[in-house]
Amino acid sequence: MQLSLSLSEVAAIVGAIEVRGATARAITGIGALDTAEPGDLSFLGNPKYKAQVAETKASVVLVPRDYAGEPRADQAFILIEKPSVGLAKLCARIEQSLWPKPQPGVHPTAIIDDAALVAASASIGPFCVVEKGVRIGEGTHLQAYVFVGHDAEIGRDCWLMPRTTVAAECVLRDRVRLQPGVIVGSDGFGYEFIAGKHEKVPQVGNVVIENDVEIGANSTLDRARFSSTRIGEGSKIDNLVQIAHNVVIGKHCIVCAQAGISGSSTIEDYVIIGGQAGIAGHLTIGRASKVDGQTGVNSDLPPNSFVKGTPCLPYQLEQRINVLRKKIPELFKRVDALEEQLKVAHE
Amino acid sequence: MQLSLSLSEVAAIVGAIEVRGATARAITGIGALDTAEPGDLSFLGNPKYKAQVAETKASVVLVPRDYAGEPRADQAFILIEKPSVGLAKLCARIEQSLWPKPQPGVHPTAIIDDAALVAASASIGPFCVVEKGVRIGEGTHLQAYVFVGHDAEIGRDCWLMPRTTVAAECVLRDRVRLQPGVIVGSDGFGYEFIAGKHEKVPQVGNVVIENDVEIGANSTLDRARFSSTRIGEGSKIDNLVQIAHNVVIGKHCIVCAQAGISGSSTIEDYVIIGGQAGIAGHLTIGRASKVDGQTGVNSDLPPNSFVKGTPCLPYQLEQRINVLRKKIPELFKRVDALEEQLKVAHE
Amino acid sequence: MQLSLSLSEVAAIVGAIEVRGATARAITGIGALDTAEPGDLSFLGNPKYKAQVAETKASVVLVPRDYAGEPRADQAFILIEKPSVGLAKLCARIEQSLWPKPQPGVHPTAIIDDAALVAASASIGPFCVVEKGVRIGEGTHLQAYVFVGHDAEIGRDCWLMPRTTVAAECVLRDRVRLQPGVIVGSDGFGYEFIAGKHEKVPQVGNVVIENDVEIGANSTLDRARFSSTRIGEGSKIDNLVQIAHNVVIGKHCIVCAQAGISGSSTIEDYVIIGGQAGIAGHLTIGRASKVDGQTGVNSDLPPNSFVKGTPCLPYQLEQRINVLRKKIPELFKRVDALEEQLKVAHE
Repeated sequence: MQLSLSLSEVAAIVGAIEVRGATARAITGIGALDTAEPGDLSFLGNPKYKAQVAETKASVVLVPRDYAGEPRADQAFILIEKPSVGLAKLCARIEQSLWPKPQPGVHPTAIIDDAALVAASASIGPFCVVEKGVRIGEGTHLQAYVFVGHDAEIGRDCWLMPRTTVAAECVLRDRVRLQPGVIVGSDGFGYEFIAGKHEKVPQVGNVVIENDVEIGANSTLDRARFSSTRIGEGSKIDNLVQIAHNVVIGKHCIVCAQAGISGSSTIEDYVIIGGQAGIAGHLTIGRASKVDGQTGVNSDLPPNSFVKGTPCLPYQLEQRINVLRKKIPELFKRVDALEEQLKVAHE
Repeated sequence: MQLSLSLSEVAAIVGAIEVRGATARAITGIGALDTAEPGDLSFLGNPKYKAQVAETKASVVLVPRDYAGEPRADQAFILIEKPSVGLAKLCARIEQSLWPKPQPGVHPTAIIDDAALVAASASIGPFCVVEKGVRIGEGTHLQAYVFVGHDAEIGRDCWLMPRTTVAAECVLRDRVRLQPGVIVGSDGFGYEFIAGKHEKVPQVGNVVIENDVEIGANSTLDRARFSSTRIGEGSKIDNLVQIAHNVVIGKHCIVCAQAGISGSSTIEDYVIIGGQAGIAGHLTIGRASKVDGQTGVNSDLPPNSFVKGTPCLPYQLEQRINVLRKKIPELFKRVDALEEQLKVAHE
Repeated sequence: MQLSLSLSEVAAIVGAIEVRGATARAITGIGALDTAEPGDLSFLGNPKYKAQVAETKASVVLVPRDYAGEPRADQAFILIEKPSVGLAKLCARIEQSLWPKPQPGVHPTAIIDDAALVAASASIGPFCVVEKGVRIGEGTHLQAYVFVGHDAEIGRDCWLMPRTTVAAECVLRDRVRLQPGVIVGSDGFGYEFIAGKHEKVPQVGNVVIENDVEIGANSTLDRARFSSTRIGEGSKIDNLVQIAHNVVIGKHCIVCAQAGISGSSTIEDYVIIGGQAGIAGHLTIGRASKVDGQTGVNSDLPPNSFVKGTPCLPYQLEQRINVLRKKIPELFKRVDALEEQLKVAHE
């Protein structure tokens, strides 16, 4: 990160109650207490790491207001109500330099169809393509090489990072963030097997992404057969995730990297799906369920399920089986021995 | 979908035998019988849903010619030989508006090398790059940001969606469709471990994709070491699939999302590979085999295999084991009890 | 591959000791002994395939200097010290025609910020975007549609293939190769659950990729929360791999396709991770460990571990269990029989 702040600048940003000690160093980085170097800021976010404060090489440490220790030479403690809140304020400041607000306007290399409506405060970067009938809302940023197909709608304050694709007729509501390489609206994978060939079933629906959704790098979301593939408000999807046609994801879900959700499955609100997990087609995963990483789900799950394994079982049972699994070679020997004993007993 | 058709327009498109009832509504969507809303068209494709016809809110329903029921007020039934065929005709019509045939010609921002041959009826969209020695056939459409490396060949009536890559010397035959983000011809992953380092083994072969193949969004197909990685005629590959170097896929195969096929494996004709399945290297998967989702295949499979699990077993056996798996904790207790009984018996 | 060499040209390239026999054919391809066609060159790299030399249809065969057999009509054997070294020399020659060294300079369509430093011998291809503060070293090649965000640093002799992304402030050292579609520096997947919503945790660190690293097509590497996600010198990463924020990969590691490494895990030097394997977060995988394909690792591994399965076990144990797994249905029957016997015995 591009950071260089004096102690007093940091104190002002985080809202210091008191500064104990001093350092002449500029703060140029952030690190955990045990790995921070001189020039770094660190923080006591969790009381269990209290002992590390005395050992840290960080030049500045955010500590709670009741923290008793004294800094070393060329080190400062900044006392504040909640170190984690102070850290968040500092990060928000750094984020502004990492991702400065772009100027509104259209880059001269961008190609905007005359029959597209781009809000005055939107920012359209180099080599973007915006086809006819597209609407792009206020404050939205298309960064570079963003492709928006005809009649797509993008709401307010969205951020589409480089080389994202929103195919024809798809809809993004407000404050949607697409990481680089995301594809919204590729065709659903549907074929009918006729006379020895797979004939394509037209995929003429779209994808609708509700407010405050974020989608990770190179993830793919297929358009529905007729209706809409939907991602509910506030849901967060990680990198390289596959969302098949007609999937409906509820509100405030988490889908971790490389997970895949097959066609027509419904994921209810507040579900968490671990990395590399797979959900088969036409299922319902009940509200607030958790699917562990690499799990394979092939049946509906009631609300508040917590499952693991392929095919999945309740988490506790799967864990129990995994412990016993190691003893299977021994179990076979025990059964061998029992059989031997009984044979002997009968002789 | 951008749809607005009157009842009589729909009747004409689907080839109505008879129209029963009437609606003043324009048809603006398509839905299943149980989820359709007023303004939607629905269809009775499968007799088992017959009871739903009386309940549906759809404004227009495609029903078989012998369907006996009467529509409600402001609702019409269209009687036709096969509702599914009528639906397909309607979808084909919608598809034309979703993906209108592009005008032939080269967009002024596209960069076409003088030593490339682009057919007169081909359509090359904005920001495409076509290098020297490339040949592009009649009716082929490069949509936007399509990169075609030197000496690659692309046949007739192909459709390369935005930001697809066909690297140098790769070959696509006719009617190949690449969904957005597909990469054809990345290097095979080959290294030799020499003196503590992984030295790159040159990957100088190519990828050949036969007629009527479709590849899903962000999938990657590596070029062969010397010869060709091949995808056979009519095969369909879903999103985020990895095809390693020297893989040969036969005709009319299906490879579902996030599956991976390791180097030099051969997939014979009509094989179906489920999502997230993995095929190890240097294997042969026999004709018409089925590999279930998340399965791991690490040995050759004879034709018509149906396998599941990691490492895979015959499907029925794996299913049987999966049922018994849940009873493993109980099995351990039963063996404990047997041992206890025998100990007591011997005392 | 675009190849056409006479026998004498091939002999010169590979460094022939002796040429036995002759062919009038131009060499236009390379193939294994058993699959080569007339016009191909083949090679006896491993003595166990010696018998195939007499049968091969290849027009030219590289054989060791002590090889005794005679070629057929219109066939030549080239005797050299090590056929594999000769083959490598030939491939290097072919590679030059496949990937000719680009001319230094900036393509007129590329957009280079005035406050970026591009070395004179670097080559920046069509539609590249290089933002302010970027430094690009000597001999580095940005092929097409390469996006380099502000203040990123790219060293010498790197090769960034089409549509690769190096986001703001990320660092590539020397001779780094990114296959098409790679994304370096997408946001880490971090949220705090506050009042029923997932609030984004700013990700303000970067990604640092050391010398001689290669990253496969469409793989994604997330920037760290504060510090750096790191890929160590000489490590090779395959296609569609997910590297989460704060991951540290050591030197000379191999990560196969579709593997995923979760946040803050450390992979020590010389580790090999198989395809589709998943490493949970905050773990350490010890030096020179091997993780088999599709394995799920959820605990630290000591150096030189070799693990398999989900959750992983030592390789030999997992293999043993996999053999016994097939016999689980039988085991249940054996326990049934034992119980029956004991019941009878007690009656």
